[in-house]
Amino acid sequence: MDKKIPYKIYLEESEMPKQWYNVRADMKNKPAPLLNPGTLQPVTLEEMSHIFCEDLAKQELDDTTPYFDIPQEIQDFYRMYRPSPLVRAYCLEKELDTPAKIYYKFEGNNTSGSHKLNSAIAQAYYAKKQGLKGVTTETGAGQWGTALSMACSYFHLDCKVFMVKVSYEQKPFRREVMRTYGASVTPSPSNTTEVGRKILAEHPGTTGSLGCAISEAVEAATTNEGYRYVLGSVLTQVLLHQSVIGLETKAALDKYDIHPDIIIGCAGGGSNLGGLISPFAGEMLRGENHYQIIAVEPASCPSLTRGHYAYDFCDTGKVCPLAKMYTLGCDFIPSPNHAGGLRYHGMSPVISQLYDDHIIEARSVEQTAVFEAAERFARVEGILPAPESSHAIRVAIDEALKCKETGEEKTIVFGLTGTGYFDMVAYEKYNNGEMSDYIPSDETLAAEFAKLPKVE
Amino acid sequence: MDKKIPYKIYLEESEMPKQWYNVRADMKNKPAPLLNPGTLQPVTLEEMSHIFCEDLAKQELDDTTPYFDIPQEIQDFYRMYRPSPLVRAYCLEKELDTPAKIYYKFEGNNTSGSHKLNSAIAQAYYAKKQGLKGVTTETGAGQWGTALSMACSYFHLDCKVFMVKVSYEQKPFRREVMRTYGASVTPSPSNTTEVGRKILAEHPGTTGSLGCAISEAVEAATTNEGYRYVLGSVLTQVLLHQSVIGLETKAALDKYDIHPDIIIGCAGGGSNLGGLISPFAGEMLRGENHYQIIAVEPASCPSLTRGHYAYDFCDTGKVCPLAKMYTLGCDFIPSPNHAGGLRYHGMSPVISQLYDDHIIEARSVEQTAVFEAAERFARVEGILPAPESSHAIRVAIDEALKCKETGEEKTIVFGLTGTGYFDMVAYEKYNNGEMSDYIPSDETLAAEFAKLPKVE
Repeated sequence: MDKKIPYKIYLEESEMPKQWYNVRADMKNKPAPLLNPGTLQPVTLEEMSHIFCEDLAKQELDDTTPYFDIPQEIQDFYRMYRPSPLVRAYCLEKELDTPAKIYYKFEGNNTSGSHKLNSAIAQAYYAKKQGLKGVTTETGAGQWGTALSMACSYFHLDCKVFMVKVSYEQKPFRREVMRTYGASVTPSPSNTTEVGRKILAEHPGTTGSLGCAISEAVEAATTNEGYRYVLGSVLTQVLLHQSVIGLETKAALDKYDIHPDIIIGCAGGGSNLGGLISPFAGEMLRGENHYQIIAVEPASCPSLTRGHYAYDFCDTGKVCPLAKMYTLGCDFIPSPNHAGGLRYHGMSPVISQLYDDHIIEARSVEQTAVFEAAERFARVEGILPAPESSHAIRVAIDEALKCKETGEEKTIVFGLTGTGYFDMVAYEKYNNGEMSDYIPSDETLAAEFAKLPKVE
Repeated sequence: MDKKIPYKIYLEESEMPKQWYNVRADMKNKPAPLLNPGTLQPVTLEEMSHIFCEDLAKQELDDTTPYFDIPQEIQDFYRMYRPSPLVRAYCLEKELDTPAKIYYKFEGNNTSGSHKLNSAIAQAYYAKKQGLKGVTTETGAGQWGTALSMACSYFHLDCKVFMVKVSYEQKPFRREVMRTYGASVTPSPSNTTEVGRKILAEHPGTTGSLGCAISEAVEAATTNEGYRYVLGSVLTQVLLHQSVIGLETKAALDKYDIHPDIIIGCAGGGSNLGGLISPFAGEMLRGENHYQIIAVEPASCPSLTRGHYAYDFCDTGKVCPLAKMYTLGCDFIPSPNHAGGLRYHGMSPVISQLYDDHIIEARSVEQTAVFEAAERFARVEGILPAPESSHAIRVAIDEALKCKETGEEKTIVFGLTGTGYFDMVAYEKYNNGEMSDYIPSDETLAAEFAKLPKVE
């Protein structure tokens, strides 16, 4: 064991980031602008401010300011659960018998159970600052809804969560955590919105979809005085807030003069990956350093590895702006897999552009291999990982095993975004040998690509 | 906000305890010895070694050695999740508008979700050291079974958990966490043991009890070559291992010259309370210092506040040794409450003696008041507490509100033993206004006291 590096590197509170980093400022090829779905023109600040909080809309559109001060109120909240530990995975290294040095940044050490809280508290803060009564959002797997409920509770904001009906019924514990934090949780589609009533009339027995929940949340935000809509991934404002992950990681590594060779993150909408890699990608963009950055996605929802880079709708309801991103088509429904947070049809425009510019690479993995890695990790490192996070674990283990073959002592850093306490149904399936893999056929994807909107 | 004290006080790894503290060494009135249920004579080391690991049996009987070295292997494991943070509850203080200073030692930051891991890893280590194949245990609420599964997985020991059938069925997620860590989980009563088959024949539809699960686990330990039985509370060896909580707490407080006035812990069998308070109680026993130490128990299972101090059986099956302790009678079945870890009929003999000697005091609280405190705490401090831990929160809030009335700036420290992720059914009941309080009548208790074994 390397005596110099502790099991867990904690920053002092005084060493915590006081600014977020906006990687777009260092990108020569900027992410393409969001387009108004009606006019196909770039969305203006004014248009955006009808749906989003003003300060957040400004952050969304700003691709030149490299650093944003983190307001003191948010710094205070961060101190309740941050800095998160950068853990040296000594036990996993030993288990794998690898010369690689493995580190993970663990973001699950808060009650929401994931990194989502980093942006939820920021979005709640700006809503409060604007004098709003509350915010609306949708949630599928429930990590984002949980985080937002906690954040709104802290700032005494009302929080209306539209939860996909099937999740509402199958994940009652997630629902109750949100209610414990004072959120109202409505199964979607519901009769509380026009769009919900319309869908219920057309499809009386539907169990809902994320696209429908987004449409209801947006309607609730725009028809209730003093409300705005908030979102937990994909948007560049979210990546900005999540940069706290990468900034802390970099500070902790620098403290011990550690240079990572490989940086790995799971990627659904890109919130965690974008946050983790931003300062490292920034160094690459400025030509100061080089890293191998790997985005890991499920083989069942392979937006980066098999998607098209094109303008597409962000939601299946097609009410939100169009974004240029790697996408499988906004109607693509991934086959059932247990990483609910990685089932989005597209990818953050920032991540998409970095991928297109070869700053990051991507890999897709199958879920049985993911759970095999999850269980192996859990047994030696003592943390039960979320299925989403376990995609990164899978590739970290693969890379460490390559080092074992070649004898290379690479330093691997991966993001462990959350815990799997609410995903035991998936673990049960794996434990019982009942888990399958799903890979969409080329024909399925081609049919979706044919439907992409013709913008360029 | 007091700028000097950070939100979370973390010890450096080099400051972590390297020895456990055995409070019995400083007790003038020693806890009474365990008695063999057949002979009513003190249990010998040899007798104990048939059921328990040898080193653990030695620890159980040693009331003169003040410090035991923590083996390096256990220290290494502790470093994966320890030191646990001592958190300054700035947000709760603000919410209560109290001049009191509130701290909590948070033991839920590991996948088992509670402090139980501190002793589980120690017991697994000694089992491994003795060359055993595995260990057996019972679990009700599931915290102990989860912790032991993790510990056994780390040392590649087999782990047979007998889980009360009703919990096995109602808490499938707890069960799956244990299975994910490689434990075999058997619903009790089962047909895998003689006692289980006997009970099933007599009560075909029974959903089991902790007493029955203990009997099955003990039988499985004594009839399988290379197995021993382990237990997560009540025993003095468990309090010894859990002293790591109190030693870290004291080191963290000393680092900032903080003197606690009040120390609060929830108490079921006494594992957490005994661990948290041991170094402080030691100072009181040696006449070096004074603290107000408060044990908090459910009003539905009030062993300290309404029990008798007498010899009683540790298990309802009456196969285990008798212990002198505050007890409600080994047949006492508490009315349904949602703090599964606080439903034991007795109390650790060490805690019982300290209580009898007025080193600690005790208070009982009702569960709706407990969940009110839990939710209030969760909303401002961002941690979803276990129902058990929330008993301590309730009294910490009560004491802080007293300070608000009197203007006293007392320093309050309480133990936050775990997280409530697997207790959302209870939170749901509370959220829906469907939770009731239960207090056993004097008549009920008198009937149980009349059945206590006549030993003295």
